Amino acid sequence: MPRQMKRHSRKAGLPPGTLLYIGEQRVEKASISVIDYSEAEMHERAVENPRECREYLKRDSVTWINVTGLHETSLLENMGEVFGIHPLVLEDIVNTGQRPKLEDHGDYMFMVLKMLYRGRGDGEIVAEQVSIILGPNYVLSFQEIPGDVFDIIRDRIRTAKGRIRKMGCDYLAYSLLDAIVDNYFIVLEDLGDQIEAVQDKVILHADPQMLQNIHRLKREMVFMRKNLWPLRELVGGLEKSESNLVEDTLDPYLRDVYEHTIQVVDSVELLRDMLSGSLDTYMTTVSNRMNEVMKVLTLIATIFIPLTFVAGI
Amino acid sequence: MPRQMKRHSRKAGLPPGTLLYIGEQRVEKASISVIDYSEAEMHERAVENPRECREYLKRDSVTWINVTGLHETSLLENMGEVFGIHPLVLEDIVNTGQRPKLEDHGDYMFMVLKMLYRGRGDGEIVAEQVSIILGPNYVLSFQEIPGDVFDIIRDRIRTAKGRIRKMGCDYLAYSLLDAIVDNYFIVLEDLGDQIEAVQDKVILHADPQMLQNIHRLKREMVFMRKNLWPLRELVGGLEKSESNLVEDTLDPYLRDVYEHTIQVVDSVELLRDMLSGSLDTYMTTVSNRMNEVMKVLTLIATIFIPLTFVAGI
Amino acid sequence: MPRQMKRHSRKAGLPPGTLLYIGEQRVEKASISVIDYSEAEMHERAVENPRECREYLKRDSVTWINVTGLHETSLLENMGEVFGIHPLVLEDIVNTGQRPKLEDHGDYMFMVLKMLYRGRGDGEIVAEQVSIILGPNYVLSFQEIPGDVFDIIRDRIRTAKGRIRKMGCDYLAYSLLDAIVDNYFIVLEDLGDQIEAVQDKVILHADPQMLQNIHRLKREMVFMRKNLWPLRELVGGLEKSESNLVEDTLDPYLRDVYEHTIQVVDSVELLRDMLSGSLDTYMTTVSNRMNEVMKVLTLIATIFIPLTFVAGI
Amino acid sequence: MPRQMKRHSRKAGLPPGTLLYIGEQRVEKASISVIDYSEAEMHERAVENPRECREYLKRDSVTWINVTGLHETSLLENMGEVFGIHPLVLEDIVNTGQRPKLEDHGDYMFMVLKMLYRGRGDGEIVAEQVSIILGPNYVLSFQEIPGDVFDIIRDRIRTAKGRIRKMGCDYLAYSLLDAIVDNYFIVLEDLGDQIEAVQDKVILHADPQMLQNIHRLKREMVFMRKNLWPLRELVGGLEKSESNLVEDTLDPYLRDVYEHTIQVVDSVELLRDMLSGSLDTYMTTVSNRMNEVMKVLTLIATIFIPLTFVAGI
Amino acid sequence: MPRQMKRHSRKAGLPPGTLLYIGEQRVEKASISVIDYSEAEMHERAVENPRECREYLKRDSVTWINVTGLHETSLLENMGEVFGIHPLVLEDIVNTGQRPKLEDHGDYMFMVLKMLYRGRGDGEIVAEQVSIILGPNYVLSFQEIPGDVFDIIRDRIRTAKGRIRKMGCDYLAYSLLDAIVDNYFIVLEDLGDQIEAVQDKVILHADPQMLQNIHRLKREMVFMRKNLWPLRELVGGLEKSESNLVEDTLDPYLRDVYEHTIQVVDSVELLRDMLSGSLDTYMTTVSNRMNEVMKVLTLIATIFIPLTFVAGI
Repeated sequence: MPRQMKRHSRKAGLPPGTLLYIGEQRVEKASISVIDYSEAEMHERAVENPRECREYLKRDSVTWINVTGLHETSLLENMGEVFGIHPLVLEDIVNTGQRPKLEDHGDYMFMVLKMLYRGRGDGEIVAEQVSIILGPNYVLSFQEIPGDVFDIIRDRIRTAKGRIRKMGCDYLAYSLLDAIVDNYFIVLEDLGDQIEAVQDKVILHADPQMLQNIHRLKREMVFMRKNLWPLRELVGGLEKSESNLVEDTLDPYLRDVYEHTIQVVDSVELLRDMLSGSLDTYMTTVSNRMNEVMKVLTLIATIFIPLTFVAGI
Repeated sequence: MPRQMKRHSRKAGLPPGTLLYIGEQRVEKASISVIDYSEAEMHERAVENPRECREYLKRDSVTWINVTGLHETSLLENMGEVFGIHPLVLEDIVNTGQRPKLEDHGDYMFMVLKMLYRGRGDGEIVAEQVSIILGPNYVLSFQEIPGDVFDIIRDRIRTAKGRIRKMGCDYLAYSLLDAIVDNYFIVLEDLGDQIEAVQDKVILHADPQMLQNIHRLKREMVFMRKNLWPLRELVGGLEKSESNLVEDTLDPYLRDVYEHTIQVVDSVELLRDMLSGSLDTYMTTVSNRMNEVMKVLTLIATIFIPLTFVAGI
Repeated sequence: MPRQMKRHSRKAGLPPGTLLYIGEQRVEKASISVIDYSEAEMHERAVENPRECREYLKRDSVTWINVTGLHETSLLENMGEVFGIHPLVLEDIVNTGQRPKLEDHGDYMFMVLKMLYRGRGDGEIVAEQVSIILGPNYVLSFQEIPGDVFDIIRDRIRTAKGRIRKMGCDYLAYSLLDAIVDNYFIVLEDLGDQIEAVQDKVILHADPQMLQNIHRLKREMVFMRKNLWPLRELVGGLEKSESNLVEDTLDPYLRDVYEHTIQVVDSVELLRDMLSGSLDTYMTTVSNRMNEVMKVLTLIATIFIPLTFVAGI
Repeated sequence: MPRQMKRHSRKAGLPPGTLLYIGEQRVEKASISVIDYSEAEMHERAVENPRECREYLKRDSVTWINVTGLHETSLLENMGEVFGIHPLVLEDIVNTGQRPKLEDHGDYMFMVLKMLYRGRGDGEIVAEQVSIILGPNYVLSFQEIPGDVFDIIRDRIRTAKGRIRKMGCDYLAYSLLDAIVDNYFIVLEDLGDQIEAVQDKVILHADPQMLQNIHRLKREMVFMRKNLWPLRELVGGLEKSESNLVEDTLDPYLRDVYEHTIQVVDSVELLRDMLSGSLDTYMTTVSNRMNEVMKVLTLIATIFIPLTFVAGI
Repeated sequence: MPRQMKRHSRKAGLPPGTLLYIGEQRVEKASISVIDYSEAEMHERAVENPRECREYLKRDSVTWINVTGLHETSLLENMGEVFGIHPLVLEDIVNTGQRPKLEDHGDYMFMVLKMLYRGRGDGEIVAEQVSIILGPNYVLSFQEIPGDVFDIIRDRIRTAKGRIRKMGCDYLAYSLLDAIVDNYFIVLEDLGDQIEAVQDKVILHADPQMLQNIHRLKREMVFMRKNLWPLRELVGGLEKSESNLVEDTLDPYLRDVYEHTIQVVDSVELLRDMLSGSLDTYMTTVSNRMNEVMKVLTLIATIFIPLTFVAGI
C-alpha cells in the first residue's frame, strides 16, 4: 500500500515548481474536451492546443474544460499560462501522490481529490487523482484516465436535466465533487459486503486463508482511510469559504455533500471496527479449536495410557 | 450491520434533490394525520391530500401534521410545495440512511433522528428514521411506520395533561424529541440486561455459542453508537440555537433532554466497556480451562508412561 | 453496574416535570432539619412542613435546610413552591440516576453530586445522590439516606470551628462539596489497597478466583469513573461562574476543591491503569505456567516413550 | 505506587486551611537558611525564627529563604504571617500529595513541583515535594529533606558564576526550576538504561523474573508520568504569565526550560512505548518457546508411539 | 534508541547559556563556507575566522554561511558575537538533543531540524541536527557533518537554475527546509520497502528472527516519529508567521512544504499501522502453526495409543 509514498522520492532535489508526472502513464495521449453552456445553449468539442481555450475566458457562459492524461507536462504548462495558474498548483496536479486538499488562490480555487475504484485484474482498490480548478467563468478538471463518473454530469448538461444548466460555475464544481463522493459509496458498500461475508464465515471456519483475507481487507481500509479522511476538511473548507467564486445559493448543496462526506468517513470507521472484531473472533475461534483438540487428546490419553499400563502388567 | 450503507449507492448518479425512497416499503399506503390545538380547543383528523393542510398555515393554533410511510414521493413533493421546504430537505427525509442532524433553514428547523426498537422475529435492533420540521405555527413529522412512541404525546394533547396545550410549536417539537430519547433508555436497558447476563455466565461457562452472543451484542452496540453519537450535537445545537422558532422558556426543557442524551451516550460507552470486559474474561477462561486440561494430561502421562515402561521391562 | 440505567425507563412516557422517585426507598420517613446561623448565633431544629421554612427566607442569617429521604414527592413539591424551584430541578432531585452537574438558574444554583461509600453486607460500592441548591441566603441539601459526611460540617457550625460561621451561604455550599470530595479519597484509597494487594498476589498465584476479583474491581472502577468524571466540569464551572451567589473571596477555596477533584480523577485513571496491568500479568502468568506444565510433559514423554519402545522390543 | 493517594484521607473532615504535614518526617529538625545577594555583595546565614526574615523584606537585594523539613507546622505558620501567604497555600506546602501546579496570587506566585531521585536501599524512585514562592524581592523554597540539587545554584551565587548575581528574583526562581527539570534527565536516563537492557535481554531469555522487572519498570513509569505530566502546564503558564513579578528579559529562559519540560514528557512517553514493546516481545517469546517444546513432543510421539504399537504386536 | 536522552544529563548543573557540544565529534575540524549571490553575481569562498563574515552584513546580496562541525564552541561564540545571536540559541545549536522547533527572535528566526539518513555499517537510521538562522540579508546553517543534501541548493545557486537567484534570503531558507523534508521521503520509502517485505513474508514464515526484525523496525519508527512529529508545528508556525523576514510571495512555497510535512507525518503513521498489523499476523501465524502441530499429535495419539493398548492385551 505504500506505493503512493514511493513515487515522491523521484522528485527530491528538483527545484520547486518543476512539473514531473509521478505515476504510471495510463493513457496514450492526453486529450482536452470542452463543454460550454448557458441555460439556453450548449456546445461540446475536443481541443488540441490549450491556447484555443483562451476564447472561452471572455464569454459569460459556463466553460468546463476536462483534461485526461497528465504525463504531457508541456500541455499542462500551456494550460497554466492561459488560465494564470501558479506553478506550484500545476506541480500538485501532476504529482499524483497528493493528499486531498483545498486551496483558495483568490482568482481561482484549487481542489485535489481521489477517485477510488476497483482495478481490473486482481481487483485491488486503485486511487486516481482528480484536480478541479474553479475560476470565475470556467471549471478545469484534470484526470489520469478517462473516467465514467463525470459522464453523468455531461449527460445532465446535454439533456438539461436537474438545475445544472440554470446555475453557475460553482454548481458545476459542486456537481463534480458530489459525483466523486457518491462514487465512494459504491466502493464502500462493496467492501462492506466482503467484510460482512468474512464476519459470518469466520465463526464457522477459521482457516489461515481467511486470515490473509482479513489482512488484505485491513490494508484496503487503511488505504481508503488515508484518501478519505482529509476530504472532510476539504468539503468543510469549501462550505465555510468566503470566496466570491462560491455563491450563497450553493450553501445547502455544499452542506449536503459535506454530510455525505461525514457518512463516508463514518462508514470507513465502522468497517474498520467490524474488521477488528473479525480478527478477534478469528483468534478466539483458533483458541477454541485448539481447546477441543486438546480435550480429545487428553480424553484418549487419560483412558488408554493407564489401561496400556495395566495391560502391560 | 452495514445495511444502512448499502442503500445509498442506488442514489449515485441522480441529480441532487431527486426524491428516491431508500429503504424497504414498510406500510402499504402513506397516511397523513393532523392534530390542531390551542389551550382551549383541539381537533384531530386524517388528510388525503397535503394541499388540505394549507388552511392550517393561516391559523394561530399549533398544528401537528404527521406523515406515516415515505415511499409515496409525490405526496412528499406536495407537502414540500405547501410548506415551502427545500428539495434537499425532502431528499433527506426519504433517504433513510441519514445521520441524525439539525439544520436551521430560517423559516423552519429540520431535524433527522433515529427511532430504535427490537424488531419482531429475530429480535434484532431496527432503526426507523424520523424527521421533524418545526415551523412558525406547525410541526411536521415523518415516520416510516406507524409508531406508538408518539401516541403518548397525542394522549397528552387530547387530555390536556401536563403543560403541552399551553405551550407553542417549539414545546411540541421538544416533546417529540424527548419521547424518542426516552425510548432509547428502554432499548439500552434491555441490552444492558443481556450484557449483564453474559457477564455473569461467561466466568462459569465459556462455550463458543456464548462467543457468538458477545459478538452479536458488540455489533448491536456499534449500531447503537452510530445512531446515537451524533444526537449530542443535534440536541446541543438546538439548545444553543438563536432561532426565533425556539423561545427562551424552552431552555430548561432543552437542557433536560440534552442531559438525557448525554446519559444515553454514556450508557452506550459503559455497555461497550462491559462487553470488552466480557470478551477478555472469555479469553482468559478459555486459557484457564486449557491449562486445567493440560495439567490432567500431564499428570496422567507423568505417572503412567514411566510405569508402562517399567511394566514393559 | 447498569443498575443506574435501569431505573430510567420507568419514567419514559411521563410528561416532563413529573416527580417520580427513582430508586429504592431507603428511609422510612423523610425528615427536614434546619440549621440557621450567623457569626453570633446558631439555631438548629427539625421541621415537619416545608412551609415552616418560609420564615427563614426573610432573615439575613445563613439557613441550611437538609432533606433526608426523597420518596415523599409531595414534600418536595412543597419545598419547590416555598423556594421557587423549577419543576425540572425537582424532577432531577428525585430522579437518582442523574449525572453530576451544575445549573445556574439565576436566583439559585443547582448541583447534583454522588456520595460514594461501601455498602453494608456484600461491601459493593454504592452511590447516593446528593443535590445542593445555593440561594441568596439559604442552602438546601437533599439526601437519600441520613449521611454522616455532613456531620463534620454541622459540628464546625455548632462549635464555630474554622471560618464557617464568619462566611456566607457560598462558603457553606463549598464546605458540603468539599466534604463530599474529601470522602472520595477514603473510597479510592480503600480500592487502591485492594488493587495493590491483587497486583502483588497475581505474580505468585494466578487462580481463576483472582480473575473474578480483578473483574469485580474493574467494574467498580468503571462505576467510580462514571460518577466522578463529570465532577471536574461541575467544580470547574463553579469556579468560573460569574453568578452573584458566589463571592470572589471564595475563589481560592473553589480552586482548592477543583484541584482535589483533579486528583480524584487522576487517581481513578491511575488505578484503572494498575488493574489493566494486573490483568496482563495474570494472562502472562497463566501462559508461563502452561509452559512449565508442557515442559514437564515433553520431558517425560521424550525420555520414556522411546524407552518403552525399546523395552517393547 | 498509590502511596501518594493514601496520605490524603487523613485530612478528610478537617476544616480547609488546617496545616497538617502529610508524609513521613524525614529530617529531625526543620532549618531555615537565608542567602541575600546583589551584584556587589552576598551574605549567607542560618535563621532560627522566621520573624528574623522580616528585615529582608525591606531590602532591594534578592533574598532566597530555603526551608528544609515541613513537619514543624508552627514554623510555617510564622513564615506565612511574615510574608502574608494565604492559609490554603501553606496547606498545599505541607500536604505533600499535591500535583505540580502554578498559582498567581498577585503579590506572589506559588509553584509546587516534585523532585525525583532514586531512594537509598531498594532503589525505588522517590518523589520529594518542593514548593517555591516568588515575591517582589524574595524567593522562598520549601523542601522535605536537604537536597543537593540546589547546591549548584548556591555555588553559582557564591562564586558569581554565570549571570545570576546580575539578575532579579525571577531569574533565581527560574534557576531553581531549571535545576529541578535538569535533574529529571538523570533519573530518566537511568530508567532508559534499564529499559534498554530489558529490551535487549527479553528476546533471548524470557524468564518470569524478567516479567516482574518489566512490571516494576512500568509502575515506575506510571509514577513518573503522574508527577511530570502537569509540569508542562506549570512551566507553560509561567511563560505566558503577565505578572509583574516575571520580567520580559526572562522570556527566552522560560522558553528554554519549557522545551526541556516537553523533552522530559516526550521521553517518558517514549520509554512507556518501549516498555509496552518489551512486554509484547516477552509474550511472543513465551509463545514461540511453547511452540518449540510442542514440536519436540509431537516429533517424539509421532515416531515412537506407532513404533511402540508395532513392537507391541 | 534513548541515546538522544542520554546526552542531556552531562549538561545538568551548568549555568544556562553555557556552550557544550553534546554528541560525538564527527569531523576533524569545523569549517565555514560562504556563498554570496544576487541575481547578477555569485561568489563562493571558505572562511577561517567568523569575523571575516562581518563584511557581508553590510551588503544587499544574499549571504549563506554554512558551518560544518559543532565541537569548536569558540568558533560558534564568535559567530554569535558577529551576528548578535542570543547565548541560549547558540546553546541549542550545539546541544544536539533538541526537538525540532522554530523561534522568532525579532531580528532573526531560528529553526532546529533533524536530517535523517541510514548510517554506514549497521545501517541504523541516524539523526543529524541542522540549525538554520534566517536574518535580514543572511542565512546561517549549522551541520554536524558535511551533508550532501544542501549540495543541490548550491548547484542551483551556481547554475542559476530555478528562481533561487531572483529571490531573497527567505527563499533560500525555504529551499534548505524543502531539501531536508524531501530527503525524509527517501528514508521513509526505504523503511516502507522493508516493512512491506516483512508483511509479505510474515504470513508464510513466522520465525523468531523475523520478530526481531519487526521490533527493530518498530523502534526505528518510534525514532522517526519523535524527530518528525514536531516538524508540523515548525513549518506551520513559519507559514503563519508575521515576521518581516518572510515575505508574502513565499506563502505558496511554505504551504507546499507544509503539505509535504503532513504527508511525511501521515506516512510515518501509516507505516506504524502496517507494522502493528504485521505483529498481529505474526502472533496469529504462531498460534495457527501450534494448532497444526497439536492436531498431528492428537491424530497420532488417538489412533495408536488405543491400538497399543489392544496390542498390549
